[in-house]
Amino acid sequence: MTHLPDKPREECGVFGIYSGPPNDLAWLTYLGLFALQHRGQEAAGMCVSDGDKFHVEKDLGLVTQVFDERRLDSVRLPNARVSIGHVRYSTTGSNLRFNAQPLTTRTNKGILGLAHNGNFVNALEVRQEMLMQGALFATTNDSEVMLNLIARESHMDLVEATAGAMKRLRGGYACVLMSRTQLIGFRDPHGVRPLVIGQRDEDGAWVLASEPCALYAVGAKLIRDVQPGELVWFDREGLHSLIVESKQPTPCSFEWIYFARSDSELDGVDAHASRIRMGEQLAREYPVDADIVVPVPDSGIGAAIGYARESGIPFDYGLYKNPYAGRTFIAPTQEARELKVKMKLSPTSAVKGKRVILVDDSIVRGTTSRQIVNLLREAGATEVHFRVSSPPIKHPCFYGIDTAARKELVSSTHSIEEVRAMIGADSLAFISERGLREAVGGSGLCLACFNGEYPAGTPLLNDVDKLALEV
Amino acid sequence: MTHLPDKPREECGVFGIYSGPPNDLAWLTYLGLFALQHRGQEAAGMCVSDGDKFHVEKDLGLVTQVFDERRLDSVRLPNARVSIGHVRYSTTGSNLRFNAQPLTTRTNKGILGLAHNGNFVNALEVRQEMLMQGALFATTNDSEVMLNLIARESHMDLVEATAGAMKRLRGGYACVLMSRTQLIGFRDPHGVRPLVIGQRDEDGAWVLASEPCALYAVGAKLIRDVQPGELVWFDREGLHSLIVESKQPTPCSFEWIYFARSDSELDGVDAHASRIRMGEQLAREYPVDADIVVPVPDSGIGAAIGYARESGIPFDYGLYKNPYAGRTFIAPTQEARELKVKMKLSPTSAVKGKRVILVDDSIVRGTTSRQIVNLLREAGATEVHFRVSSPPIKHPCFYGIDTAARKELVSSTHSIEEVRAMIGADSLAFISERGLREAVGGSGLCLACFNGEYPAGTPLLNDVDKLALEV
Amino acid sequence: MTHLPDKPREECGVFGIYSGPPNDLAWLTYLGLFALQHRGQEAAGMCVSDGDKFHVEKDLGLVTQVFDERRLDSVRLPNARVSIGHVRYSTTGSNLRFNAQPLTTRTNKGILGLAHNGNFVNALEVRQEMLMQGALFATTNDSEVMLNLIARESHMDLVEATAGAMKRLRGGYACVLMSRTQLIGFRDPHGVRPLVIGQRDEDGAWVLASEPCALYAVGAKLIRDVQPGELVWFDREGLHSLIVESKQPTPCSFEWIYFARSDSELDGVDAHASRIRMGEQLAREYPVDADIVVPVPDSGIGAAIGYARESGIPFDYGLYKNPYAGRTFIAPTQEARELKVKMKLSPTSAVKGKRVILVDDSIVRGTTSRQIVNLLREAGATEVHFRVSSPPIKHPCFYGIDTAARKELVSSTHSIEEVRAMIGADSLAFISERGLREAVGGSGLCLACFNGEYPAGTPLLNDVDKLALEV
Amino acid sequence: MTHLPDKPREECGVFGIYSGPPNDLAWLTYLGLFALQHRGQEAAGMCVSDGDKFHVEKDLGLVTQVFDERRLDSVRLPNARVSIGHVRYSTTGSNLRFNAQPLTTRTNKGILGLAHNGNFVNALEVRQEMLMQGALFATTNDSEVMLNLIARESHMDLVEATAGAMKRLRGGYACVLMSRTQLIGFRDPHGVRPLVIGQRDEDGAWVLASEPCALYAVGAKLIRDVQPGELVWFDREGLHSLIVESKQPTPCSFEWIYFARSDSELDGVDAHASRIRMGEQLAREYPVDADIVVPVPDSGIGAAIGYARESGIPFDYGLYKNPYAGRTFIAPTQEARELKVKMKLSPTSAVKGKRVILVDDSIVRGTTSRQIVNLLREAGATEVHFRVSSPPIKHPCFYGIDTAARKELVSSTHSIEEVRAMIGADSLAFISERGLREAVGGSGLCLACFNGEYPAGTPLLNDVDKLALEV
Repeated sequence: MTHLPDKPREECGVFGIYSGPPNDLAWLTYLGLFALQHRGQEAAGMCVSDGDKFHVEKDLGLVTQVFDERRLDSVRLPNARVSIGHVRYSTTGSNLRFNAQPLTTRTNKGILGLAHNGNFVNALEVRQEMLMQGALFATTNDSEVMLNLIARESHMDLVEATAGAMKRLRGGYACVLMSRTQLIGFRDPHGVRPLVIGQRDEDGAWVLASEPCALYAVGAKLIRDVQPGELVWFDREGLHSLIVESKQPTPCSFEWIYFARSDSELDGVDAHASRIRMGEQLAREYPVDADIVVPVPDSGIGAAIGYARESGIPFDYGLYKNPYAGRTFIAPTQEARELKVKMKLSPTSAVKGKRVILVDDSIVRGTTSRQIVNLLREAGATEVHFRVSSPPIKHPCFYGIDTAARKELVSSTHSIEEVRAMIGADSLAFISERGLREAVGGSGLCLACFNGEYPAGTPLLNDVDKLALEV
Repeated sequence: MTHLPDKPREECGVFGIYSGPPNDLAWLTYLGLFALQHRGQEAAGMCVSDGDKFHVEKDLGLVTQVFDERRLDSVRLPNARVSIGHVRYSTTGSNLRFNAQPLTTRTNKGILGLAHNGNFVNALEVRQEMLMQGALFATTNDSEVMLNLIARESHMDLVEATAGAMKRLRGGYACVLMSRTQLIGFRDPHGVRPLVIGQRDEDGAWVLASEPCALYAVGAKLIRDVQPGELVWFDREGLHSLIVESKQPTPCSFEWIYFARSDSELDGVDAHASRIRMGEQLAREYPVDADIVVPVPDSGIGAAIGYARESGIPFDYGLYKNPYAGRTFIAPTQEARELKVKMKLSPTSAVKGKRVILVDDSIVRGTTSRQIVNLLREAGATEVHFRVSSPPIKHPCFYGIDTAARKELVSSTHSIEEVRAMIGADSLAFISERGLREAVGGSGLCLACFNGEYPAGTPLLNDVDKLALEV
Repeated sequence: MTHLPDKPREECGVFGIYSGPPNDLAWLTYLGLFALQHRGQEAAGMCVSDGDKFHVEKDLGLVTQVFDERRLDSVRLPNARVSIGHVRYSTTGSNLRFNAQPLTTRTNKGILGLAHNGNFVNALEVRQEMLMQGALFATTNDSEVMLNLIARESHMDLVEATAGAMKRLRGGYACVLMSRTQLIGFRDPHGVRPLVIGQRDEDGAWVLASEPCALYAVGAKLIRDVQPGELVWFDREGLHSLIVESKQPTPCSFEWIYFARSDSELDGVDAHASRIRMGEQLAREYPVDADIVVPVPDSGIGAAIGYARESGIPFDYGLYKNPYAGRTFIAPTQEARELKVKMKLSPTSAVKGKRVILVDDSIVRGTTSRQIVNLLREAGATEVHFRVSSPPIKHPCFYGIDTAARKELVSSTHSIEEVRAMIGADSLAFISERGLREAVGGSGLCLACFNGEYPAGTPLLNDVDKLALEV
Repeated sequence: MTHLPDKPREECGVFGIYSGPPNDLAWLTYLGLFALQHRGQEAAGMCVSDGDKFHVEKDLGLVTQVFDERRLDSVRLPNARVSIGHVRYSTTGSNLRFNAQPLTTRTNKGILGLAHNGNFVNALEVRQEMLMQGALFATTNDSEVMLNLIARESHMDLVEATAGAMKRLRGGYACVLMSRTQLIGFRDPHGVRPLVIGQRDEDGAWVLASEPCALYAVGAKLIRDVQPGELVWFDREGLHSLIVESKQPTPCSFEWIYFARSDSELDGVDAHASRIRMGEQLAREYPVDADIVVPVPDSGIGAAIGYARESGIPFDYGLYKNPYAGRTFIAPTQEARELKVKMKLSPTSAVKGKRVILVDDSIVRGTTSRQIVNLLREAGATEVHFRVSSPPIKHPCFYGIDTAARKELVSSTHSIEEVRAMIGADSLAFISERGLREAVGGSGLCLACFNGEYPAGTPLLNDVDKLALEV
């Protein structure tokens, strides 16, 4: 990964394309996934069908590692019409390879491929019920529960059965699903996870993706977001839509704080512009007298520009980021984690003798933040004021973000002053929830990791116990 | 593969071990699979459990390619109690990797692993029925039908459910199945495919394997064959047995003709000794005046020794076999297949100026045989008399052997005299069915590929059609 | 590479360490090379000696690709005292692997390892002469000429022979050389290529590196630059120095324009600060009325900040850079090069409806610049004013920089107005040579690629002819 | 390797081809090397030239591992005229990869490639002398001394200089050497190592190879052996010959005992036929009353057939050899070596209750022999009589064979009776030197490893000391 080790991690990015006239969909899906690589670096995969053949390839690794020329060729179909793809950041486990997506299965509706981003909070409950009814589960992947629900309704067609499954499952999710002839996309009733629709001018091909950048990568324009609770499908007649279930929209605020690429617009809100507004808001909420505003690259850049603009304090590059630092790095000793930060970031002359306002998007464990503050001091910064463009993270995410276990979340167990002391900053301030809401704008936001209010429910605890017993 | 390209191919070898006191079962399974490598070269895999964790690794490649040290470590469990393994020769397909075995799945009986050798002739029928009932199939593997049948009976325990599934499926098969705490083995009612039981002296661990050589490889002794239609299982109390269904035993004759290692004894008949008897029988049935008896290495060695003994004509090494010829070999032009034979076999001085009796185990397409006869003539053999220790192969096998499509079987469409002319031999003779029966001995044999009499049934033709539509 | 395809490319980075008490020098060299990765991405290598054993490993790939744990272990020596390392960007050739450095050879002075950055302009001449005297050359590498010169003087010790070789060879270079017991570093008489000396506080180990960042990476402090024409060596007694030949210092200006990391200080001039000064100078020389200043990331960041500061026009992030874009990327069609830019850079909302000042460090062929201007216009920029923090590149570099062949240098064959039209900018301006000199400061600069004045000479043309005949 | 771990190992095989009309020489060299794979399994390489370009590729691994399609393509030249290749078994060392052959170098005679089999006994002496004269050595490879000697004579042409180098170096060797336009082959004055000349009927292309099998592999016929002390070269005018130095021919006896493929004829003596004669001789020299004659496969097959013929005792296959046993095999514990034998060889039913005459080609350390005897006893053999078709090996080889260090040679330090007791045989006998001479026939033989009489000299001991100091 090129992300710093101590950031929340998106679990997935999804992509789908339905092409009227045949197209090299393996190649277009490759481009789309490449543009979504920031959403998951541990596995990548795709399915391609021409209405008859149905090819699938997936493996651990970056898109460019999984799909070398030989392997991309192996999924290519000259008359391809439908394709979906997936990039995954996966939590640890011994069977990582088997959990790579898209998940494919043969059902009474023919062969299906599913790629999903997010989590179903009642997946274990449903899974347990289906196991007792004689179902098999090849993986520990939530997606398989969705596919079993779809397959079970042998009297319904694929769209109906998918709508039925959406009603049975709760949580925050955005999925793409394909049969040999259809592309389907759907988003949870709260719209926690993002999904956008695009179309190519040159041939009218329809595209679904977690972020608009993947649309642009394949020459498509952004048409609109899939609505919360909406099910869309594409076939020879074009785009169809069904609102399965509609609730108060609460898209994930972290998409704007950190996850989404700065060239993305989601649910009508531009990521880069909102980050600048967060920085401006932060400058209004927590001003401080200093000489320069320095971002933690690359996550703090937008907010740092905003902070600098609002405060009038010059923006500068105080930290060089080694572009090769994301590569697998051998670290034989205990000092490994500390070394990783040091090999990735190093202070420039800009901070020497300066009072520095250091801007980042979030603090999770605080360990990396402490090292960065330390690097700046060693390089001669006389003061370091830490400003964070998200509120303190105190609660785990159940909708597809890997924040860290609750006890590792430094803000869950420590006051802001305690965190400040730990990271060694002269001052520390987080944007307020209200300030964040204003900076993002829009009608509603999921702020569960800050305030513990989970709009789409939480898992039953005894599901976790069952998991321990069963899997 | 180190086999010549034109031989019947066993589709699989299976191995299982249940250990009272904990053992390094990953390592023992590795040794067992290594000894069974001749039964399948395209994929290898194993599952290991300690009663709690359940590790699985499988991939395309030879046992030693799939399991390098890192990967063997990844399935190792310090307190392992149960393990199964599989080597596979697989027919072509785009999803080869996903079809590697053991197949694992999560069911209401906990996680299960299944490895099988052979085929269920009514698998598609049963599969179609289950699809309509809402079942999912992750693979196109027959094994998954067996697992679905087992999972469906949620009211039965694992052994009962397995016995039920055996009754529902027909064909020629031998399987090993494991849960976290049990090892199960079963063999079809006709005993078409082999399965033997062994036990280690040093710790009493129970072992199942396709051939005894895998028992010896892990330090176990041969106890007995699993009986046709028998289901055996192993747990802390030891070996249990249930005869699920018993029919006239008809083990596959090709195990003795070619597949089984020459150090194997199956159903009480020693492979090497039976091959020598086949050669002796052949010499009695089809004597010829000649100077030397030359085996096609390695498949014709046993029968050539027998032929030489019975005829009194000296045995000699007329063909050198390049031990590296099994490796992947680039062949850029049309001449590829021909080159492969030439790079693998070359005549020694023994054949120069001699009348040669060339002995092989079988003729499938005849193309390789033609090239070998040609090589001998080029090297100065004055006559080449071809003797084959199996009857002409005229019918496909539906019980797990890849012979080739019927139309490719040269003896299916040509008389013996026509085949002789094609391969360019001075004379050609195949052992008689009766002669083969006598050479093998024992009570019954499956000779379906020679005479078209299928003891365990054949697939319904329209199943093949369904497959074309569905998968 | 993570560099855009159309930038000048440094050919190498070098590193060396001499440790009094034994140290894990393989690991320290790995860290040092990792910090120098931006200076060469095609090959990496190192030698390590403990006074007795002499290990070497090198291969094509990034430092982290060449040195996985197994391979780093294979060069590790528990009592290591001397080590050198190299990262290489190499021009094309069939024997790339054999040209990786350090180059090692056995001579009458024992085994030697040499890693060099830069070029000897009379290497071919000297090589030809030595060939006629019976010398062998294993590679086409300039370094081997240096080693042959050193070996030839069998009556001199290693330091004397190296000084002699420096006198015989001309050009711009910085080298590290090691025997089993000594570390040597030397820099050409004009100091064209950089080389710095550092020392670790904790154990007094001496370090040589192309840039200070590699010193910091191993816990060393910057002591001083190696002087132009200086030869330094390290043994148990510490640092020794000899000025072999001293000329007017003319360090390469491109180190400050682009190559050096922004946290580097070379010959007393800080890279980041000088880039800001270049931007300020550019704003003074070529002001324009606009809404935002946008850098081409990452090469234009420093100058863009300077331009924004001096002009008062807001700095903003108008181009998102995909951090995974450096990975090997399959591009099956003619559109490949264009796609690479598009998959790497995409405009953010910041440029929409804005008059943009786009700042980059240089223009080589102009193709990438054209695409970036085009991307901005498509994203809604109303005007694009291109500002470049280097003068137009008109001449090839003979001192170790791969600019491109002269005919490919767009400014060599086109006027600024023609280039402006080609790249489609509303205006285009390059910093003046005088302005660049002032921004960098210091006593002298090599500006050969701008003005064709080569301080350290040029190759004889007929050497090129000989090369064509001989190699 | 597929050889048992305890056999003498040939260090190399060489191949060369000169083609009048252009040919796909990379492919032909690949085929030739593949046929010579048994002579070296640790590295493979080739050079190809079309008179202008000169491509080289080499690496650790089998021919089929080093040359996948991509890599074979990378040396392919459409108008290739000359090519040489090499397979290597290499003694241990840290720089194995750099020591792979062919060795290439640039000299005053243009670029040269050299591949050699054997050793120069005075290489270190000559090397030391050249080092003092200022020469460089990139490798520790003997070949480089040869190349330096050739390069040094800048006033001579390539053939003259090579002849001069042959006179300066002593030992047992066979080499192929190429420039852009010539193919050269030469063999030491005693003809210790083999080299044969062939020609293709279809286009008259000339071929050189260590054994005739490589000629046949590329469609060439055996023309004749290169004579001891002969230098042959090929150019547009065809084959040229020069006898540089002629001594009493003493080709290596181990070529017939074990190394050469059984389809090879060297210096007029057929390998397979001579092995049968060795077995017959052994039966005459050391008869014993027994039930069957069993070869250790594959090395003992020829002699076992001969023994069986002469004695009238039936030949049988008492040991099954696992064809996959040559693959890299993980063995995590101390029992590794023992396991390797067990996983490779297993007794068949043929030995049960029998008095067995076990025939092998040689005994080196005796460890493997002991295990085989043990395997046979466990399988029920009532007596095991060991017969060896070579005399006891008591002395190291200095001409390119890796026998093992002298102290590891069991026959060097133990009497035959002691060895018999160690390996647990009922009787043990080795063929006599005289018997071996008669079985091979021909004018002379190198028997140095049996009797310590080294026809081509031995290394000076203090050269070994110098090596320790210098390399």
